[in-house]
Order: sequence, then C-alpha cells, then structure tokens
Amino acid sequence: MEELNIINLLIILVAAWVGGSTAKKLGYPAILGELIIGILLGPALFGVLETSEMISVLAEVGIILLMVYIGIEINFRDLGKASWPGLLAAIGGFVVPFALGYYTIIYFGGDPLAAVFVAIAVAVTSLATKSRILVDLKLLNTRIAYVLMAGALISDTLALVIFAGIVSFVDLGSIDTMGLIWVASKAILFFAFTALAGIYLLPLLGKYLMKANVNSRTLHFTLILIIVFGFCELAEIAGLHSILGAFMAGLFIRDGVFNRQISKEINNIFHDISIGFLAPIFFVSAGFNVTLEVFQTDLAMLVTVTLVAMIGKIFGTALFYLPSGFGWREGITVGTGMNGRGAVEIIIAGIGLQMGIITSEIFSILVFMAIFTTLTVPVFLTWTTNWLRSRGELVHQESRSGYIILGANPLSLYLAKHLQQNDEVIIIDANRELVNEAKNQGFNSMYGNILREETFEDAKAIEKGTFIALTENSEINFLATQLADEAFYIPNKIVLVSPKKGGADVDMLDRINATSMFADKTELKPWIRKISSENFEEKTVEIRESISTREWVKDHRNEKSILPILITNSEGKKRAFRYNDTINPEEIVTYLQ
Amino acid sequence: MEELNIINLLIILVAAWVGGSTAKKLGYPAILGELIIGILLGPALFGVLETSEMISVLAEVGIILLMVYIGIEINFRDLGKASWPGLLAAIGGFVVPFALGYYTIIYFGGDPLAAVFVAIAVAVTSLATKSRILVDLKLLNTRIAYVLMAGALISDTLALVIFAGIVSFVDLGSIDTMGLIWVASKAILFFAFTALAGIYLLPLLGKYLMKANVNSRTLHFTLILIIVFGFCELAEIAGLHSILGAFMAGLFIRDGVFNRQISKEINNIFHDISIGFLAPIFFVSAGFNVTLEVFQTDLAMLVTVTLVAMIGKIFGTALFYLPSGFGWREGITVGTGMNGRGAVEIIIAGIGLQMGIITSEIFSILVFMAIFTTLTVPVFLTWTTNWLRSRGELVHQESRSGYIILGANPLSLYLAKHLQQNDEVIIIDANRELVNEAKNQGFNSMYGNILREETFEDAKAIEKGTFIALTENSEINFLATQLADEAFYIPNKIVLVSPKKGGADVDMLDRINATSMFADKTELKPWIRKISSENFEEKTVEIRESISTREWVKDHRNEKSILPILITNSEGKKRAFRYNDTINPEEIVTYLQ
Repeated sequence: MEELNIINLLIILVAAWVGGSTAKKLGYPAILGELIIGILLGPALFGVLETSEMISVLAEVGIILLMVYIGIEINFRDLGKASWPGLLAAIGGFVVPFALGYYTIIYFGGDPLAAVFVAIAVAVTSLATKSRILVDLKLLNTRIAYVLMAGALISDTLALVIFAGIVSFVDLGSIDTMGLIWVASKAILFFAFTALAGIYLLPLLGKYLMKANVNSRTLHFTLILIIVFGFCELAEIAGLHSILGAFMAGLFIRDGVFNRQISKEINNIFHDISIGFLAPIFFVSAGFNVTLEVFQTDLAMLVTVTLVAMIGKIFGTALFYLPSGFGWREGITVGTGMNGRGAVEIIIAGIGLQMGIITSEIFSILVFMAIFTTLTVPVFLTWTTNWLRSRGELVHQESRSGYIILGANPLSLYLAKHLQQNDEVIIIDANRELVNEAKNQGFNSMYGNILREETFEDAKAIEKGTFIALTENSEINFLATQLADEAFYIPNKIVLVSPKKGGADVDMLDRINATSMFADKTELKPWIRKISSENFEEKTVEIRESISTREWVKDHRNEKSILPILITNSEGKKRAFRYNDTINPEEIVTYLQ
Repeated sequence: MEELNIINLLIILVAAWVGGSTAKKLGYPAILGELIIGILLGPALFGVLETSEMISVLAEVGIILLMVYIGIEINFRDLGKASWPGLLAAIGGFVVPFALGYYTIIYFGGDPLAAVFVAIAVAVTSLATKSRILVDLKLLNTRIAYVLMAGALISDTLALVIFAGIVSFVDLGSIDTMGLIWVASKAILFFAFTALAGIYLLPLLGKYLMKANVNSRTLHFTLILIIVFGFCELAEIAGLHSILGAFMAGLFIRDGVFNRQISKEINNIFHDISIGFLAPIFFVSAGFNVTLEVFQTDLAMLVTVTLVAMIGKIFGTALFYLPSGFGWREGITVGTGMNGRGAVEIIIAGIGLQMGIITSEIFSILVFMAIFTTLTVPVFLTWTTNWLRSRGELVHQESRSGYIILGANPLSLYLAKHLQQNDEVIIIDANRELVNEAKNQGFNSMYGNILREETFEDAKAIEKGTFIALTENSEINFLATQLADEAFYIPNKIVLVSPKKGGADVDMLDRINATSMFADKTELKPWIRKISSENFEEKTVEIRESISTREWVKDHRNEKSILPILITNSEGKKRAFRYNDTINPEEIVTYLQ
C-alpha cells in the first residue's frame, strides 16, 4: 500500500466543487467550471494542483463510470422517436464540422490521424450542456429541445463509433488489406456481441434475479460493475478503447431489465460516483495538461479550430436541417443549441493525447475550443430563441405526451373531455361500473388497481406526459403518484388534495415532484354532485396580465364555489389547472361555477 | 493518463464476488471469502492475480470509504445504551487478548512496536460478522445480541484510539518528554477538533442546506466527500493515519444532520461503493501479501497467536463479564460471538505492514488468525447458544422497544391496554376529540399528523420498536408506515389493510418491510362498533403445536367474526397478532368474538 496524497485529492475535489457550482450558478454546465479551475490552479498558471498516480487512476475509473452513466441516460425509445429532423440535425452538425476540422489540421500541417481526432472533437455535441439551459430558456417542451436532445445523442454515438474505428487502426502501423479486414472484423464483432448480450443476455440475468427474489441493491451493483468492466475488457481485446465497453454496457442497463426500484437507485449511484466524485477529478486534471502558450505559438490554429467548430456546427446543422421543412431559422437555433462541447469531447481528446496521436498543443486547443463553444451556448441560444419566439415560430412539442387520469368520476370525465381534444387521455379506475360507464360515454377507460406497476404498464405510462390523480382519497392519489414518479418518471404529476385534516397534505407533494390539482385543496364530492345533476355552468375568462395559478385562485376566493379546471393557450391547447403554473396573457381559464 | 489494467481489476472483482457470495452462502461474512480467494489466486498460491498501482489506489480509497461507512453505522445512542454489560464484555474481550497478544510477540522475539500492533489485531472484534449469524441463530432480540453489538463497537473504537496512539509515536524515533507531549497534544487536538466540528459545525451545515432548500443528493454527496477527505488530511497533519479521519467523519454523518431521505440515500451510496466495489478489492489484495511459508517457518507463532486470540477473547470476555451478574455461561457465549476478526483488523494489519512495523510473516499470521477465528464464530456460537437455550438462560431484550399506534379508535385503545402491560405505548391521531378521549381514559396519547416527520420525532419514533398503523384508511396506514420505515427505521411495522378494492394492498407491504395486522385484510368498522357497544367477548386459546399466524387465521375462518389481536408467550409478554409470525407451543392467542 502506497501512502495516498490526500491533500492533493482534497484540493482537487474542493476546486472541482467551487468551479462546478460557480459555472452552474452562471447557467453553464459544471464541466466548464471544472476545466477552467483545472487550468487556473494547474501547472499552466498557478501551479497549486498537480496530477499524481492516484489522481489519474481515479480520473480514469471516473471516465468509465461516467460513460456508463451517459449510456444509461441514452434511451433507445428517444433515439427512435428522434426520427427525421433530429437525425438531419445530428448528421449536419456532425459531418460539416468534422470535414472542416479535418482539413483545418491538414492545412496547418498536422498528420491525418491527428486531423481525424480533432475532427471528431469538433463534431461532437455536448449532452450535458442542454438540459439546464433548456429549462432556463423555458424550451423544454419545444420541438427544438427535442431535436437538440436527439441530435446530441446521435452525434455522441457517431463520435464514439468513428473513435472506435480510429483506435483500431492506430495499432496497425502500416495498413494492408488483410490487416484492415481483421481490425474491422474485431470491432464489428465487439459491437455485435455486446449488443446481442445487452439485448438478450442481460434481460435474462435480470429475470433470473427477479425470479430468485434477489433484492440486494449492493449485489446488483456489484454484478453490473462486473458486466461493465467485462465489456471494457472485451473492447480492449477487440482493439478498441475501454470507454466504448463502458458506454455499451450503460446503453443496455435500462428500464425494465432489473427491478425498477433497484435500477433507479443504481443509476443514482453511477450518477453520484461519476458526476459527484470521480468525473470532476478527470475534468479538473484535464486542465492540468493544458498549456497557455498556445495563445502565443498557435493562436492562428486555435482561432481557426474554434471558428470552424462554431461555424461548421451552426451552419452545418442549419443546412442539413432544411429538408425537415421547419425552416432555416429553426435550423440555426438548433445549431446554436448544439454548439457546446462536453464530456465526450474532453475524454476523446484526453485519450488522443495519451496515445500520442495529438500533441499537447492540439489538446490545449481542443480544451479551449470546448470552453469557448460552451460559453456561447446560452448567449447564442437566447438570441435565436427570442428571435423565433418574436416571429411566433417556436413550436411546442412534448417528448412524452398524453394523460393518465386516475379516477373515473364525473369530474374526471369532464376534464378528460376537454383534454382529449389535443391529446390522448386514458382513465383508470378500480371500480368496474365507473369504468364501464366511462367506456359507454366513449372514453378510453381502463379497469385496474393503480397502485400496481402492471396497471401503469398496461396504460403505457412510460410514454405518458402527465399523470392526474383525481380520486376522493388523497392518500391513494399520493401513493399512485409516487409510483408514477419513481417507477415511470412521468414528468408532470398533478394530485388532488382534499382539505381533510390529518391525511396526506400538500407539503408531501414536493417529495414526489408533484403539484396540486386546481392549485388548492379541493373537496371533490360537491363538484361530482353538481356535474352529475348538471347543476353547474362552465365559464371562461381571458387573462390580461401574467399571473400565477395560485394568485388567480386567491383573487377569486371570495366568489364562492368556483373551480378552475383548465387553461387554454393562444394556440387552443388545453392544460389542467394546477399549482405552480403561470397563466400568460391571452390564455383562457375555464372554470366551473 | 496511464492505461488501466482492466483485466486485472475485472478478475479481482469477479473473484471477490465469487469468494464473498460463497462465504455468505455458508453463513460467513463476505470478507472471509474475499481474503481466502485473494490468498488462493494471489502470488501465494496460483499467482493468477497480482497487485498494481491501480488496484492499490482503489483499495485505499475503498478503505477510506469503508471506514466512513463503519463510522456511519456506529450509533452513539446504541453506545450509550450499551451501558454496563456491553462495556464489561468489550473491555474484557479487548484487554485480555491484547495483553496476551503483546507478550506472545515479545516471547517470540518481536520488537515492542510490532507486539502492540499484533496486540490490537488480536483484541479487535469484527463488526461485520455478527448481524448475519445472529439472524441465522435467531438471536436478534436477545440480550446477547445486544451485548455483542455494543462490545464490537466499543472494541473497534478502542482499537482505533490505541492505533492512533501508536501511529503518532512511530514517526518519533527516539522518545523524549517534549516530543511525547507534542505528539499526544496533536492527536488529542485532532480528536477534539473533529468531534467539535462533527457535533456543532456539521449540523449547522445541514441546517443551512435544509433552509436553502438544497435537495440535490449529488451535491450533498460531494460535500460529504470533501468533509471526509478534509478530516483525513487533518488526521495526517496530526500525525495520525487518514482512516481515523474517515472514521471520525462517518461518526458524525448521522441521522438528522442532513435531510433524512438524502442521508439514507448517501449511506446507501457509501455502503455500495465500499462494500459492493472498492473494499472487496482491498480484502482480495490483502490476500496477495500473505505468504504460505509461515506454516513451515513460523508455525509455532501462528498457532500461538491464533490460540491466544481465541482463548484471550472468549475467556477474557467471560471473566470481565462476571460483575454483570448474568452468569459465566452468558459470558462465554458473548465471548464466542466476539471471536471473529474483520475489516478493522485487516486494515490495521495492512497499515502495519505498509509502515514496516510488522513483517510480512506477522502480517500473514494475522490474516490467517482472522480467517481461523472468524471460521469459529458460527460453530462456537451455535454450541453456546444451544447450551444457554437448553438451560432456559437465553434472555430476550429489545434494542428498540415500545409501540407507536396510529389511530385512537376503540380497537387501538383496546390493543394498547394489553400491550402497555409490558411496554410503553403511545397513540397518535389527527382527531383531537379521539385523542382527548384516550387521554381521559389514561392512555399516553398525542395529537398530530402522522404523515409529518415532526410528529414522529415528537413521539420519539427513533427509539421505538414497533409501529402499528390502525386507522380505517389503508392508504394513510401505508404512507405513515413508509415514513416509519424510511426515515425512522422502526424495525417492526404492522399495517391494517382493509379489504376495499383498488387501494393499497398487502402486496405493497413488502416494499416497506411491513406485515399486515391480524394476518388478514380486516374491516375495522364492525369491530369498533362492537367494542364501543361492549358487544363482544375476549377469549384466549393456548396453542399446542407450532403454527404460523396465517395458518391459524385460515383454520378459524369458518368461525365467523373472530379477530385475533394478541399472542402472549410463556413469559407473559404480549405481541400484536400479525402476518408472518409463528405461534409457538404454550403461547396463547387472544381473540375477540
């Protein structure tokens, strides 16, 4: 056992945390702050931090676990849905900067292999960058967000495949036909084997564990680590880099393979070990390898690579996006959103440096390029989305859409009648009569106990965007919503909370990321009675000034027995009236009286 | 970046898993299998595995995280409760083998420093060993289990304190008075500072995070890691070993410092990274340093150390245990239970080897001693407990006792009347009238919303042994029990499930480790009515043959309207009638009719 250099590790962790959280506060991804603080405190500038054997071991294990996590986060279903526009954007945003990046390095006298490495680095799109910026710019439910997500996923996958190709050939030295075939076959065999193992063997293992009633999260974690390092070793045997094995393993550790609850907890563990512990060590120490001298010695190349990266990405995306028919402005916007580079780029650049394919000057240029391009994303994306918004061209689209409504009571049906004008709605109840009654009225209705995962699965919950729990029993509502959140990740969850004392209360909704239906505690019975006896009126009111739903309810508290149920936006799209929502000007509130 | 030796890591992980799970299947702690497989596959025998820079870095980080986890698991409240007998056992089981171990090494011509190291290793008690064996031998609720637990905790803490002392002095070389004072002051300062920081600063940080509404588990994890490595660095500055810092940090990352839910998840992460990933790497690679030659060259010392460890531990414990008044047989039993050595011993021995204080022969002897003593535990403990049991001297004792009953309805009160004959019972309801009524009847009753953590805290839930949810609303019962399980770890949870369709059902109880009250779905209303109108009879029946509660209920299904509420054992102790319990001969079932 060698003495650990604890102080060095400690400072790197603190630096990573300070850098990462500062970046996040400014709306940038943590990796940006980690890279910058690594450059600042590393040998390049202040020389406070240095690398060591321990740091590099931890950093490398960190990358492997991070690649697993990146793989886990890629959902085939999302990739499949990405379809035409996402694929166009991804290919354009990859091919054009790739070509430009390649010829830039050739132009500056670099060798072809280095040029291909730079080309990949320039072509990659950051996966981590998006989500936070999209939230800040309120873009989450737009088509742009959707295309961006798909674009980043496809571009990362493309980058890794090409990277796999290069790594195979580097060992080759002189290239003859037989060698080429041998190398290519090994790589193809690797992907074929891991994919088949992932698709067929892993679910078998999962089923076996479920049948054997193995509920130990720790055992699952150990087994998954063994699979991960097994895939890493296979990648190396195939002449590829181990991160490809980690990525492939992550791809197949997905929903439904293992017990849902355990899967979720294990994803959390991979997330926390990599993003909360080991990956920042890698990104900070990546900054150690940067030399500031490139600003003097290779400024022209630095500027060119950065410009080529930006222009190639933005206009390449826009160009290839044209056939989608969504217009060049949306293409430009998608391009600005995809302009960031992130974890995968730095990892690939680091491997290039380690393998001696790129020089430390080129490595430094790639790190700075990542920093500069990432810096532009929020700025450019704010411009372009405001531009689209002002022209009324910001198209909304849900990645998961449709409603599950729990409870087949008259109020639910009334709400469903409205909501199903835009969206698919499925109503679930454990009361067979109510379900049949709803079916007779033409509703898409299903019998089942909503506290069981099977019922959610039958209702295709994993594709649904909104879960509304609308039974009289707040606790059933709460428990069902908990399941919707924990096992099916339904993004929007709206829960009816009744004003009864001593039961589930609104403060419990935070825990399950839900909000309360009608933006207030509500007694269901009177409204059910009114609707059954048709003793009510539906009224609408148009809103002039932006107001929160909560405020709206407070303002109307004096007018007795009002129940706001829907908000209709200017495009005629309806959504349920819930707490923690803002009603914008020109939107219409529908309420019962 | 250096190429990782993935294949080596992979084989070690697989070996650890195979060794660990085989050991566990045989009823031994995983560490035993990991050590043995390390010796088998390492340089000592087959030479398949070898150590490397990467392995040793991961192993050392693993030890640090494991020490954090060991610290987290030590509960001051448990230590406090341990009181007299636990302390006696711990001291006897430590001091006697310590002295014997020391003089054994001196006798064999070792130097005093090495002798002290061996003495600590011989004196330590395994923390990990117990729990599984106690479950297998059905000892969990006995006084022995309780004393064992406390004994192991105290002995580990003692070992680490003495270890701290030695490490301080090793650097000293020649010892003069000033040097002694300086070294001792630094060590004392370290413990004082970390204890004060743990007691006062950490809760402040926790409160700050809670107030600032920081709910990110990952951020908490990063901050805790920074604290851990900060404490490690402090330990090194104070001239101590970093594991002491990790241990101190773990001690103070306890319930209530951070958000309970987040704390629990972070404990899980420390558990899984250390026990599911890194610590096994350490234990397997500890086996690499073992030489089998000691069986030829130093057989006498090996045999003597092992015998001294066993005899010293068992009879030392029994001897010091005498003043407890619980008899020498119980003392011997406790001694056999404490005879295992585990993680802490191997860690300390490894550090001794690394610092050059003990030779690799002595290290090997200590590893074999750990293996042999651990092997004895289940065998000896089975003998001794059967011996006690056959003499009727196996005394039951609960570490957490007392009941919380949710619901102040007449049936709850009726049940409470019985249960409070042996135990403290507190009844909680959100209905003020029912609570007052219960108070008037002399019950310990409390008003509060049981779905809030505050209510649980007011009821001192963290000390209670059993939670019974007995309201008519199965979903409230379920949600409250979930909180009892997740935030307050109440060991026994019994839930009334009503036969209503479409709500919370018995299959959900597994998730929260609860069982159903009355061992059947039960409608509460009729019984409340009967009790209120005193229109019922209480009957008892003595059981002749062992029968499960479920079977009992099935057998009595024909006799209409029977409600089994209690089981009274031969000592007159009553427990609630629940699913998944066995009624033993001579026990009495109390039921209402």
